[in-house]
Amino acid sequence: MSWLSIPSDSHFSIANIPFGIISTSSNPSPRPAIAIGDHVLDLRAFAEGDGFSASSDTQKHAHVFSESSLNAFAALGRAAHRAVRSYLQDVFAKDTKHPEVLKDNQKLQKAALLKRADVKNHIPLTIGDYTDFYAGKNHAYNVGCLFRGPDNALQPNYTHLPVAYHGRASSVVVSGTQIRRPWGQILRPGNKVPDLAPCERLDIELEMGMFITRENGMGSPVPVDEAEDYIFGYVLMNDWSARDIQAWEYVPLGPFTSKNLGTSISAWVVLADALESAKAAGIKNDNELLPYLKEKKQNNVLDIDLEVDLITAAGNKTTLSKTNSRNLLWSWPQMIAHHTITGCNLRPGDLFGSGTISGTESGTEGSMLEQTKGGKVPIQLSEGEERKFIKDGDTLVIRGSYGSGDSKVGFGEVSGTILEPLPLFK
Amino acid sequence: MSWLSIPSDSHFSIANIPFGIISTSSNPSPRPAIAIGDHVLDLRAFAEGDGFSASSDTQKHAHVFSESSLNAFAALGRAAHRAVRSYLQDVFAKDTKHPEVLKDNQKLQKAALLKRADVKNHIPLTIGDYTDFYAGKNHAYNVGCLFRGPDNALQPNYTHLPVAYHGRASSVVVSGTQIRRPWGQILRPGNKVPDLAPCERLDIELEMGMFITRENGMGSPVPVDEAEDYIFGYVLMNDWSARDIQAWEYVPLGPFTSKNLGTSISAWVVLADALESAKAAGIKNDNELLPYLKEKKQNNVLDIDLEVDLITAAGNKTTLSKTNSRNLLWSWPQMIAHHTITGCNLRPGDLFGSGTISGTESGTEGSMLEQTKGGKVPIQLSEGEERKFIKDGDTLVIRGSYGSGDSKVGFGEVSGTILEPLPLFK
Repeated sequence: MSWLSIPSDSHFSIANIPFGIISTSSNPSPRPAIAIGDHVLDLRAFAEGDGFSASSDTQKHAHVFSESSLNAFAALGRAAHRAVRSYLQDVFAKDTKHPEVLKDNQKLQKAALLKRADVKNHIPLTIGDYTDFYAGKNHAYNVGCLFRGPDNALQPNYTHLPVAYHGRASSVVVSGTQIRRPWGQILRPGNKVPDLAPCERLDIELEMGMFITRENGMGSPVPVDEAEDYIFGYVLMNDWSARDIQAWEYVPLGPFTSKNLGTSISAWVVLADALESAKAAGIKNDNELLPYLKEKKQNNVLDIDLEVDLITAAGNKTTLSKTNSRNLLWSWPQMIAHHTITGCNLRPGDLFGSGTISGTESGTEGSMLEQTKGGKVPIQLSEGEERKFIKDGDTLVIRGSYGSGDSKVGFGEVSGTILEPLPLFK
Repeated sequence: MSWLSIPSDSHFSIANIPFGIISTSSNPSPRPAIAIGDHVLDLRAFAEGDGFSASSDTQKHAHVFSESSLNAFAALGRAAHRAVRSYLQDVFAKDTKHPEVLKDNQKLQKAALLKRADVKNHIPLTIGDYTDFYAGKNHAYNVGCLFRGPDNALQPNYTHLPVAYHGRASSVVVSGTQIRRPWGQILRPGNKVPDLAPCERLDIELEMGMFITRENGMGSPVPVDEAEDYIFGYVLMNDWSARDIQAWEYVPLGPFTSKNLGTSISAWVVLADALESAKAAGIKNDNELLPYLKEKKQNNVLDIDLEVDLITAAGNKTTLSKTNSRNLLWSWPQMIAHHTITGCNLRPGDLFGSGTISGTESGTEGSMLEQTKGGKVPIQLSEGEERKFIKDGDTLVIRGSYGSGDSKVGFGEVSGTILEPLPLFK
């Protein structure tokens, strides 16, 4: 319980303490903050007001909060994240050991404790490389059926290794950024040559994202049982996908322009420590795994309830999907172990995507492509509207959380509105 | 002609003036430099010694040479690159307009003019995103035949768009960096489940690389006839490839761990302006292209002579291949136009690879996979040795240049030695 009023069921309870980058109209300089209830704590102002000085364990790290991204904080490693998070939990606790730091310090409250509604969020880390995995087995199967038929839906390698591809880091944007409907090459059914046209099958991909916190050396694979140490924290992700462009371009080297138009992530990074107890069994893998993918820890997949809303330009809201991030075949440590098996070096700020997360039942799909059976069966929205894919002006919102009440740990949301295409090539 | 002694046929003639990042044993701080003959000019020392002050056009840019990468210089744009290169060409010219700057300035020569053999090279730019194209049509056809047979060698999209995939930026390294033979998942012929083993089919990919110099906005495609303005310069590239790992992992999302083990680039970036006249016709494309890929400029592919040497651990050298970068189906402007067609934002420091460059005749292949017909026909080396793929201790060297004599424009080389695999998983 906190001395600060935190609404019950807030995603940003005292059990969470997620980190992000904010700015305000009165101070447009991007700076680190945590979200707590309906407030944020500006960590640069907090550090400048000696907020970290009650503990030498955190004071020695306070300099990282003068930066404009979380990369320096991430690079401190998990012991430091743990120390800073615990310290901030104590600062906000009703029975805090250090009431002089903030609870009884009106001056620092005024300088550093801001209303969340008044701040603007920025991309939390400068992303080095972004890798998108394909660990959502139900999604991989569903989409494989649509693109290649049920016999080749899952390739022979799928259950032996976490399939992934390198994504585009420059176009990863923070929640709230508008996305322009892309033009691209599209091969129409029955045609032999492609058109250049605005995408007609623009879709979401409901994913979780994970940020890397430390370097392995190039040439040094990360053992799977040490991989948790490389995890900074998690975000929600929407990997916007142009299905018609993807179908034409993706053979043989994978998706390219159909994916690099934009990837949206939620603004607040939930630290790995905040989700230590939010673990469950993933999708069972009947294969005998190669040793480098075998985890000592069982039930090592995150247990996050996820949902997707579509809000039309007229403001009508429909929940398209409800699912859970247990629907993954591979854990984050397995993805890290595989990513580095040939020696690839990871760096603080690298981003991994889980792949699209779908359940097995209707209403649990992580993409519209699956829910509409490849664009054939429209989704019924409120107020009599329907959708096969996204229309201009639609806003897609993904939310995710674990637990409930005063100890809920949530991500807030990742949202994005689709703008009409440019007239450029008309 | 220069007052400085420059060997005839030097890659780094006064017609070139390529930029890189160097350090020395007496000053380990990485800093910008140009290569000129057997020397380099330390641009940080040159700027600090007022070397740029004879022209206000260059003096205003001199601050970028205090940086430890070329990103700030690249971001100045092509007009600035042109001004700085012309100025430095004059500084080294026999009949320089400003002999007081360096020719007659022993003090600045001592501070800034170093022997090239005495400097260490570093990665020239901090790479944001790395994208590898597949524009070498002969290579794509040869490898397609080996992986999928001649009927599906080139996919239907191949001649309509520049096929590409997002690569791994973190593991791009400068020439001379040693590469560790990777472990990875390999499916043996006749087996149903993969092994974990050191790569047995480690290969080169002979490519050209291109660095981006300016941003387009996200959502704003670059018109093909404006794309030259986005090019900073070029390097040689060796995209090390683990063929056995690649064959098992690459379907359906493309190569991943088989490529992210390391990509080597040459140390000196040859500016776009230095290769303005080194243009020729590429491979003819019989398709009617979509308007966004149609260039007004004809014969817009680089004309660089390329060759590959293999040097064994015992020091025996064999030239494996001689080819030319004309063997590309797509020009760099076409690659830029396609990369951005769906709105992807490019940033200064982004790196493009051309794809492997192979001719059509024996001895012109850009990979050992092609030259050995998929590992079946050994390559005969000097001293009676032979190779199907790379052995531990082998050094692979790619060289490239245009023209000859006193106006040769070359890249020097990109080299890398393969180290034995770690015992980690034995």
